Amino acid sequence: MPSSYPLESGMNASVIAIGDELVSGHIVDTNSAWLSNALGDIGINVVGHRCVPDRVELIAEQLQQCAQVADVLVVTGGLGPTADDVTRAGLAWAMGEELMEDGAAFEEIVARYAARGIRIPDENRVQALRPASAVIIPNPDGTAPGLQAWLGAAGGAAVFVMPGVPAEMTSMWHRSVVPAIREMRQAKGGGDGDVESAEQVIVTQLVRCIGVPESRVGKLLRDLMERGANPTVGTLPQDSVVTCRVRGVGAAGVIEPQVEAVAAEIERRLGSHVLGRGMVTPAEAIVKRLTAGGLTLVTAESCTGGLVGAALTSVPGSSACYAGGWQTYSNEMKIDCLGVDVQTLREHGAVSGLVADQMVLGALEKSGADLGLAITGVAGPDGGTEHKPVGTVYIALGVVDEDGKPSTMVRRFAFPAGADPVRSRESVRQRATTAALGMCFLHLVSDVGELPGWLTWEHRPAVESG
Amino acid sequence: MPSSYPLESGMNASVIAIGDELVSGHIVDTNSAWLSNALGDIGINVVGHRCVPDRVELIAEQLQQCAQVADVLVVTGGLGPTADDVTRAGLAWAMGEELMEDGAAFEEIVARYAARGIRIPDENRVQALRPASAVIIPNPDGTAPGLQAWLGAAGGAAVFVMPGVPAEMTSMWHRSVVPAIREMRQAKGGGDGDVESAEQVIVTQLVRCIGVPESRVGKLLRDLMERGANPTVGTLPQDSVVTCRVRGVGAAGVIEPQVEAVAAEIERRLGSHVLGRGMVTPAEAIVKRLTAGGLTLVTAESCTGGLVGAALTSVPGSSACYAGGWQTYSNEMKIDCLGVDVQTLREHGAVSGLVADQMVLGALEKSGADLGLAITGVAGPDGGTEHKPVGTVYIALGVVDEDGKPSTMVRRFAFPAGADPVRSRESVRQRATTAALGMCFLHLVSDVGELPGWLTWEHRPAVESG
Repeated sequence: MPSSYPLESGMNASVIAIGDELVSGHIVDTNSAWLSNALGDIGINVVGHRCVPDRVELIAEQLQQCAQVADVLVVTGGLGPTADDVTRAGLAWAMGEELMEDGAAFEEIVARYAARGIRIPDENRVQALRPASAVIIPNPDGTAPGLQAWLGAAGGAAVFVMPGVPAEMTSMWHRSVVPAIREMRQAKGGGDGDVESAEQVIVTQLVRCIGVPESRVGKLLRDLMERGANPTVGTLPQDSVVTCRVRGVGAAGVIEPQVEAVAAEIERRLGSHVLGRGMVTPAEAIVKRLTAGGLTLVTAESCTGGLVGAALTSVPGSSACYAGGWQTYSNEMKIDCLGVDVQTLREHGAVSGLVADQMVLGALEKSGADLGLAITGVAGPDGGTEHKPVGTVYIALGVVDEDGKPSTMVRRFAFPAGADPVRSRESVRQRATTAALGMCFLHLVSDVGELPGWLTWEHRPAVESG
Repeated sequence: MPSSYPLESGMNASVIAIGDELVSGHIVDTNSAWLSNALGDIGINVVGHRCVPDRVELIAEQLQQCAQVADVLVVTGGLGPTADDVTRAGLAWAMGEELMEDGAAFEEIVARYAARGIRIPDENRVQALRPASAVIIPNPDGTAPGLQAWLGAAGGAAVFVMPGVPAEMTSMWHRSVVPAIREMRQAKGGGDGDVESAEQVIVTQLVRCIGVPESRVGKLLRDLMERGANPTVGTLPQDSVVTCRVRGVGAAGVIEPQVEAVAAEIERRLGSHVLGRGMVTPAEAIVKRLTAGGLTLVTAESCTGGLVGAALTSVPGSSACYAGGWQTYSNEMKIDCLGVDVQTLREHGAVSGLVADQMVLGALEKSGADLGLAITGVAGPDGGTEHKPVGTVYIALGVVDEDGKPSTMVRRFAFPAGADPVRSRESVRQRATTAALGMCFLHLVSDVGELPGWLTWEHRPAVESG
């Protein structure tokens, strides 16, 4: 489904995440990406994100800067009870107001503690503070209420402050912030009644594909990607997946079919490599095709340790096609659970095409599934050798035919090992996971494809050295 | 190890990520958190992050704003060959310069393609452009060279632009940007020779704990968390883990022992719940303790589908203690691989304490490991019932004693199901993963602890209804 939203209110939003732990890189800010998607869903264009430290004057300054370019400021974090939670004070400073205690909010917090048979801790009292003209947003999921305020006079921005805890934030977003924005917008729309701009919309479609290098995608779509075109087409590679983004701006009812036509043309050119529309993942595309075909899949993972199964089971409804798998991290588990041959392990090592092959055959036999994936490799930082450096991964795809006979395809990949050992380990594991899912997807759509890092493939692995 | 860095150069950095796909929330910006950590490692304080769309005038404006508050701007993204890659143009605009082709960079790109036997695609020629006074940073890992430039006259900021692809970015950071910053700094330090400020340092220590609610941590550390204190202490909860951050600013040689004393005091007060110093994960803490004790662990996962094994195997060296596991997603896998009783499945359902108990016993028996973890639950969005709503998860910990006899502990958790079905599914699975690792850790340190969402626990599960 295309995301299409009206621009009648001309609304732009800035997303601001507050917290030293974000600015210092101790944790990754995922709230802002979530909120951007959520703002897009209700037709608001996001002009940027910022992460700001827990410092009153910096928070105030950034809020004021953003209020000059955006109609809505969506702020998360810094509402907790501890001394480093100063978002309330930063907002008050930006508004030129004092903080005061909100009687009703204080009662609410007291009641919340009383229900658990305890007195409100002194430090939690600050959570009932708000700038004088701000309004408290109730938080039934936690002790930190949100805040709604107005920054600047007419032409200023509406500010919504939510807790940084993702579950509390998403709940408050749906329950309180979306209705408040809708109300604001209706009031605004009714006020200026700008009919011409009310018909302008932005429409976005994503087409994702796997097994085609980005440069080839760029070549295939070159005429569609010309700068200044409307709709515009952009591409973004991530592991083996390339996302093509089609974005059109124009009159409602006119631009939608234009965007759809370009998206359909992209699908036509990329053919069987298309995973689907929207941010569809390789796992989602596989689950959809397996379920439609009444097929089952099992996994046997060594270096990925469960990432392939975790990706598959992240898809709702995956139990219809994913039976499960084995995380055979030790050699003993490979031997005992999957019947890998001791001699093969000794002669070729656990990281070898023959072991990947035996792992997938064992998994198919034990489970009775239709398809199997096995992954064994050197994720690093240690364990690399001259012939099998860090990043060497063997992936086997096993398929059972109508007569119940399995055949396998084993590919050897050489994923780049980065400069940072921990990030490199996770990168190799992640790339191996996507490549395994890619091999399965390309088999399901009867295409071999080109997966990054791919070196060789064989239907039955020959005896190798190393 | 404490991260301690000199402030002699008084250097502040802004981190700027460029790309519509980031601002629209299609992908999460992880580069900025990585760069913040990397900047911290070389003693540069980060004052904020920004994500900016692929628009020349917005990029220029944000670069200029950041140059007013930071000495170094670290920029990623928008250097690709496609029409939506406009970071080069944005930087040139901000600098008030024209873009020109860099002869050497163009030759380099031509040679890179020639080595693969192909002519440079027309669209890749733009990757050799740079603002007139900027310098090209070579990129041996890809076709997009980086840029080094100066924004504003004296008192302005040094700008480093790197590709958005994480592997290329991290490689360019270590190879070229760090040496360039070090050089800049030496030149600066030599220039003004400010001896007094040269002795000021920032020192940060993190202490992470599990199984203690944040409010309790706040109470235990209240006197240490007073605002305006030096060192300051802040806390941040994430699932069952609370991170305590100790940060001191002061004279080198004086402030380090003060920060260390506060960190040690926090460890003393949080006792056995301390996972360790730095951003240590529950999986790292478990792997360390298991390895030290010569113990092995197996897993049996249903709703988490491999996340627990993936977390454990993300730790380098985990093969010393993690044997592997089973992703028994289907009932058949639970029966065939782990010996779960058909009758129990029928009477109590796959999501029950008895099934979790049988799963862990089966895993211990099949593997001969010392400890086992089993997880079965309702991750949603469907499958919830009145008695077992979405978020209900049973986790069993099994321990084999010296005589080879297993005992188990099963806990029932009720994790909150959020408003967004997909995010809620992942949140339940992630919380279940952390809770399982938490149960294992608390057992290893001989403490029961309080894990969020925890409802009941039993050493042997009684027969339950529902």
